[in-house]
Amino acid sequence: MANAQGIGSSVGRLEGLDKVTGKAIYVGDMHLPGMLVGKLLRSPLPHARVLSIDTRQAKKLAGVKAVVHADGFQNPLYGPALKDASIFPRGRVRYVGEPVAAVAAVDADVACEALSLIQVEYEPLEPVFDPLLALAPDAPILHPDLSDYETVYRNPIRYGNVPLWTRGTQGDIAEGLARADRVFEHTVTTPTTHAGHIEPHATLVQIISGNRAAIWTTTQQPFIVRSTLAEIFSVGLNDLQVVVPNLGGGFGGKEYLLLEPYCYLLALEAGLPVKMVMTREEEFQGSCPRHATHIELTTGVMNDGRLVARKARLIYDTGAYTGQGPFVTACGLMAVFGPYRIEHREGEALCVYTNKPNSGSYRGYGFPQPTFASETQLDLIAAELGMDPLELRLRNAAQDGDTVITGQRLQSVALQHTLRQAAKHAAWQQKRTDRQPYRGIGIACGIKAAGMGASAAFVKINEDGSATILSGTVDLGTGSTTVLAQIVSQELGIPLEQIDVCTADTRTTPFDVGSIASRVAYGMNAVMRAAQDARHKLVQLAADYWMCDAESIAFDSGHVRQMDNPERVLNLSEIAAISHRAHGGPIIGIGSFVAGEGQSIQLDSVEGFPLPAIPHFVFGAQVAEVEVDPETGHVRVLRLIGAHDVGKALNPLNVRGQIEGGLVMGMSAGLFEEMVFVDGVVINANLVDFKMPTAMDVPELVPVIVEHGHPDGPYGAKGLGEVVVVPTPAAIANAVFDAVGVMVHSLPITAEKLLSLMPPSPPLSPSRRESGKPRAASRG
Amino acid sequence: MANAQGIGSSVGRLEGLDKVTGKAIYVGDMHLPGMLVGKLLRSPLPHARVLSIDTRQAKKLAGVKAVVHADGFQNPLYGPALKDASIFPRGRVRYVGEPVAAVAAVDADVACEALSLIQVEYEPLEPVFDPLLALAPDAPILHPDLSDYETVYRNPIRYGNVPLWTRGTQGDIAEGLARADRVFEHTVTTPTTHAGHIEPHATLVQIISGNRAAIWTTTQQPFIVRSTLAEIFSVGLNDLQVVVPNLGGGFGGKEYLLLEPYCYLLALEAGLPVKMVMTREEEFQGSCPRHATHIELTTGVMNDGRLVARKARLIYDTGAYTGQGPFVTACGLMAVFGPYRIEHREGEALCVYTNKPNSGSYRGYGFPQPTFASETQLDLIAAELGMDPLELRLRNAAQDGDTVITGQRLQSVALQHTLRQAAKHAAWQQKRTDRQPYRGIGIACGIKAAGMGASAAFVKINEDGSATILSGTVDLGTGSTTVLAQIVSQELGIPLEQIDVCTADTRTTPFDVGSIASRVAYGMNAVMRAAQDARHKLVQLAADYWMCDAESIAFDSGHVRQMDNPERVLNLSEIAAISHRAHGGPIIGIGSFVAGEGQSIQLDSVEGFPLPAIPHFVFGAQVAEVEVDPETGHVRVLRLIGAHDVGKALNPLNVRGQIEGGLVMGMSAGLFEEMVFVDGVVINANLVDFKMPTAMDVPELVPVIVEHGHPDGPYGAKGLGEVVVVPTPAAIANAVFDAVGVMVHSLPITAEKLLSLMPPSPPLSPSRRESGKPRAASRG
Repeated sequence: MANAQGIGSSVGRLEGLDKVTGKAIYVGDMHLPGMLVGKLLRSPLPHARVLSIDTRQAKKLAGVKAVVHADGFQNPLYGPALKDASIFPRGRVRYVGEPVAAVAAVDADVACEALSLIQVEYEPLEPVFDPLLALAPDAPILHPDLSDYETVYRNPIRYGNVPLWTRGTQGDIAEGLARADRVFEHTVTTPTTHAGHIEPHATLVQIISGNRAAIWTTTQQPFIVRSTLAEIFSVGLNDLQVVVPNLGGGFGGKEYLLLEPYCYLLALEAGLPVKMVMTREEEFQGSCPRHATHIELTTGVMNDGRLVARKARLIYDTGAYTGQGPFVTACGLMAVFGPYRIEHREGEALCVYTNKPNSGSYRGYGFPQPTFASETQLDLIAAELGMDPLELRLRNAAQDGDTVITGQRLQSVALQHTLRQAAKHAAWQQKRTDRQPYRGIGIACGIKAAGMGASAAFVKINEDGSATILSGTVDLGTGSTTVLAQIVSQELGIPLEQIDVCTADTRTTPFDVGSIASRVAYGMNAVMRAAQDARHKLVQLAADYWMCDAESIAFDSGHVRQMDNPERVLNLSEIAAISHRAHGGPIIGIGSFVAGEGQSIQLDSVEGFPLPAIPHFVFGAQVAEVEVDPETGHVRVLRLIGAHDVGKALNPLNVRGQIEGGLVMGMSAGLFEEMVFVDGVVINANLVDFKMPTAMDVPELVPVIVEHGHPDGPYGAKGLGEVVVVPTPAAIANAVFDAVGVMVHSLPITAEKLLSLMPPSPPLSPSRRESGKPRAASRG
Repeated sequence: MANAQGIGSSVGRLEGLDKVTGKAIYVGDMHLPGMLVGKLLRSPLPHARVLSIDTRQAKKLAGVKAVVHADGFQNPLYGPALKDASIFPRGRVRYVGEPVAAVAAVDADVACEALSLIQVEYEPLEPVFDPLLALAPDAPILHPDLSDYETVYRNPIRYGNVPLWTRGTQGDIAEGLARADRVFEHTVTTPTTHAGHIEPHATLVQIISGNRAAIWTTTQQPFIVRSTLAEIFSVGLNDLQVVVPNLGGGFGGKEYLLLEPYCYLLALEAGLPVKMVMTREEEFQGSCPRHATHIELTTGVMNDGRLVARKARLIYDTGAYTGQGPFVTACGLMAVFGPYRIEHREGEALCVYTNKPNSGSYRGYGFPQPTFASETQLDLIAAELGMDPLELRLRNAAQDGDTVITGQRLQSVALQHTLRQAAKHAAWQQKRTDRQPYRGIGIACGIKAAGMGASAAFVKINEDGSATILSGTVDLGTGSTTVLAQIVSQELGIPLEQIDVCTADTRTTPFDVGSIASRVAYGMNAVMRAAQDARHKLVQLAADYWMCDAESIAFDSGHVRQMDNPERVLNLSEIAAISHRAHGGPIIGIGSFVAGEGQSIQLDSVEGFPLPAIPHFVFGAQVAEVEVDPETGHVRVLRLIGAHDVGKALNPLNVRGQIEGGLVMGMSAGLFEEMVFVDGVVINANLVDFKMPTAMDVPELVPVIVEHGHPDGPYGAKGLGEVVVVPTPAAIANAVFDAVGVMVHSLPITAEKLLSLMPPSPPLSPSRRESGKPRAASRG
């Protein structure tokens, strides 16, 4: 069906006007009568025993309505992979910023004063901040009970400060390295970084009755927040309503729990609604940043550029608790071999405890860090072999039927085409040839696991032929709400202005695992199926009404008609009215989808691996052009080209926007972002000192859409959200290498770092750089 | 499945504790930031041209945020049967209390002051208040454009002040009356009365964006409010979200629109949320009371008590507009022949305009008034024939296959059994024999059309095996929310405390025509089907999971099990978790039901009849015992027995409660309720002067449940809500007749009225009354 608002149309955001005019409501904007302000008392020490907590003075303060800490409730262990965390300390704090108690008071001043009145007696313990030191035999042990913790995955391997150890093997790594013409060894590090979503975490809880509560919160996973809270507090899922209003960015930083359990406890205790909003400092010190990593990479290649062997060791710094660490670490193991065919490979990945905040998910989920390692090493290899980096990648690019380290086979791979598209839009050959001093061009590929989890959707056809979609999907700002409406418009011929999309309310919308893992587009199978179900029912209804076979009825552009009787035509409003009044009843489509349904892949080639089979992998290729200031080491990115195979661009405007945003975010990881810890304290815990790019830093952005349809995606769509940030740091690093011959092996590529690695240049007269091969690599 | 909380169990209300502890939120309790108070300027004249409206002064008043009247918008004609009404006058007002303008201001005082500043210039027109006078050829015509109004029903017959004239004929009335041994003629009148719901009408509107609004309102029909508003304001159904929080009684008084359009207009104009709450005076002067009627009844009987002919003329005073008047009047035509087999019958029913508020629906919907006429006439007939009134009714009681005046056949009739049950619990024979002075016993039957319209429901199985029901049903206070949960508990073996019921939100719950027409229990077919659908899906899911046939799987008490493999058992939480995680996806049941689906009954015996076929009729029999104070005429009701065939008592406690409440409400209509009009003004527009029974007036109540299952009802259930009030006034009148030999032919049976009709009794020494037949009937 041709539909100007349907699939493939670049329609604007349904909620766009409200957002730009300030009408859109976020959790922080909400107010309920009698609402209190909640605040957390956080540990000032990175590692300590908690000997006592005295809240008596705080409770006496006028205006304080609730003070809660570990003594007040059961405080069970919980965790998505390993149950090692608790809402409040069970005798020990493990990072600066760990919540120790919470108060609710009539305003923020009173709440903060109450916090200052809580007396906590600590016995300091020796901390460990560096994951490599945490692996030492004599390191302080953060979790002496590690081996007793419950875990959700089979065959966990854990010891010391290592809550997850996993290894993958394919082929014979020793033989592969021995057979290689050349072997390259590098070590790369990446820092802890924060997603920097402009909206901080915020939660508002209103107790309805007994333990029953309505919870408005900033989460990408309302259903998972619901089930985790239910587990912690031993209540039923039917008792908790988790609602997400507009969300001001997520990027993975709003997966899983944060303020919700405290806010719920305070509201229960106070008997009044409680709202909590994190300060920016708390965001840095108390939310879930991207894992810092240490990655060792040994790669064997033939002289013709063929990759034959790779051995990798990955260390992910999960901080004080695992949270999503085991899953993120496992993703690193899949990422480190890149989207390449390598016969012999072996990798081990360790998730390691340190006395820092619990790292979590941040756009890319374990893939960006090893990709930076792998893709920068590739350019060093290309340089050594005298090959074009594009050519090296094309030669080794994965294709349909190749496997990742888990043994899972790839399908719907168009990486070579995507690489060529990126190169074409970058004028790769011309730019490589036509060189300018201190300018360089770099390329990198990315792979990302995508599409996990289940979704469902309802499509209600109203009595006037308009529609209401009920979907649990959270729109992170990606425009998913608009695309849901486009799908219904596509399937049913209903104009967008006649479609209401109701999302992300665990009570009223059907289950959705969340807006994570680049899964939203893929999960839209659910709403497509729901719309198709409604269409099927409309046709059946018309058949019953006309007393004819459903096969004789056509549905197109919002009409049903009997094919051999031109007088029998009903538009959607007519048939909906007939049905609601007296014939058939309300028309409701329902669709349910679980990614990887029916897949039962044995992940034989991995040990201790905590993830199931991946529904699909997505691929992209990016090119960066940079200019380096030889006097300061400042890298200016001139142009970023992002070519991404989205299968099908459901809304090309959204896709371009998501690629553009991802390129900037990837650049930010490449050049800017780093949380700096001193004794476990984030010393740049604000948006002045934690650098993120401003509009002035944004280069020319060239989104390139590749559409190699996935057989299981709705209309062929694949995931996109995360893979966009995966190759960018490496593309920039490779461009810097191309410009000045220095490969920086630690992120971010700051001016200081680069300058310290660059050979001195004549002051005040920048010399023209020699053309040809980059010079030898240095370590950052 | 045996289930202590399932169907047939007398479990308490899920929301009961919240209601009795004051936690339950009603619209009037709600508050939104920036919320304004809305007020209506109402016409002080019963009939007038509106020459001009000047709102300039009102708009200048500080704190006034919006003033709206007819000039501001299109103000189209609308109406459920006939489009004769508009939100604001289109040049003419037709009753005292008709809204002329509306204001929204920062508080009620400012709003009221603003009303006083609005200048309206009227040109008075001659009013008519009595429907009989309105039928006169020279009566003032309220709607000169009557014949041009659009109507939803075919073949409307209308003229003068009569927007609906309908006639039904069966047999040959002239022949029937001629053949009868005796012919009885009576005229009966009933007054305008108000449902007296304790919660007044209230509406809160918040504009979301553009024309889109969230509307919290006191309605029994959120979906109909939505569609009517959408029609009036030319917006899509997807633009309006109508939500009903707890409702403090409805009884028909909260069907259809009232404050909603004004509140919506004000909120649009002000750009802020607006709340309107009716005063008690406005409730009486500006909502939709029960129609006053004038009923003429001519009945031919044989000496053996057989009813052979009845001719009826019914006049329903609809007030200034039709609203639901045509439908209510049509119901009167069905009611006036009672639940009896009468071969020859003819009735004409007129809906008549007068300059009074628009009458609407009130528990019984046109049936109580003719039932009072018919059932009191039966006792006069019995007295004349020397028959026992019970015997007379048993002899003529309708049975399966008999028809109502429309020609529609009755099914599932157990009236004789119900009569005998009422008589048994009343000790009818003994009380009739063992007489005491000024005490009497009376019996009456009732019939009511029930079950119209469509409903749908979702049952979501959560990941822990708990469930969330989504249903558009409004719980008027009948306990329907609890019964919805019981049905799901019954079908799926889920304990009630693990079931959340989310109701009455047009955005998130599926369509439901409303809690009207005693249809809620019958419409629960939808949730039963949804639960069964979920069960079917659970079984199929287990079959897929175990890779076996669905036929080999049993579902009982919240478990699925493979019948020939005792090790294969999963409880609901296990299978739900499996499904949500990786297999099958979210489990959601869906059910849709439209009453009378597939019925295509030709209503051949009626002309100008505006109703479709009735899904089913329900029956009841009631006995009243009274004592009359011979000096004051005061009637004290000693005991009321209500025997009602509910098909199946889904929750017997609820059913008993509904019968008890109905008996008191029926008694109220019999003895208390009357809105007194003087020149179109309700002079008893408050709960002091408009009498309703207090706890002191309530007699012993004996609910008797009869369960003659209906083949189409869920578990056999039929409607109950309304029929309970239908026979009561006649049972009381007949008891009074039995006590003092006076039949009062106009409601209510006040002490003054009865005293004026009673023969004088010796002062200060009440004489013992002679036993035996009552004396001759008098007219009231």
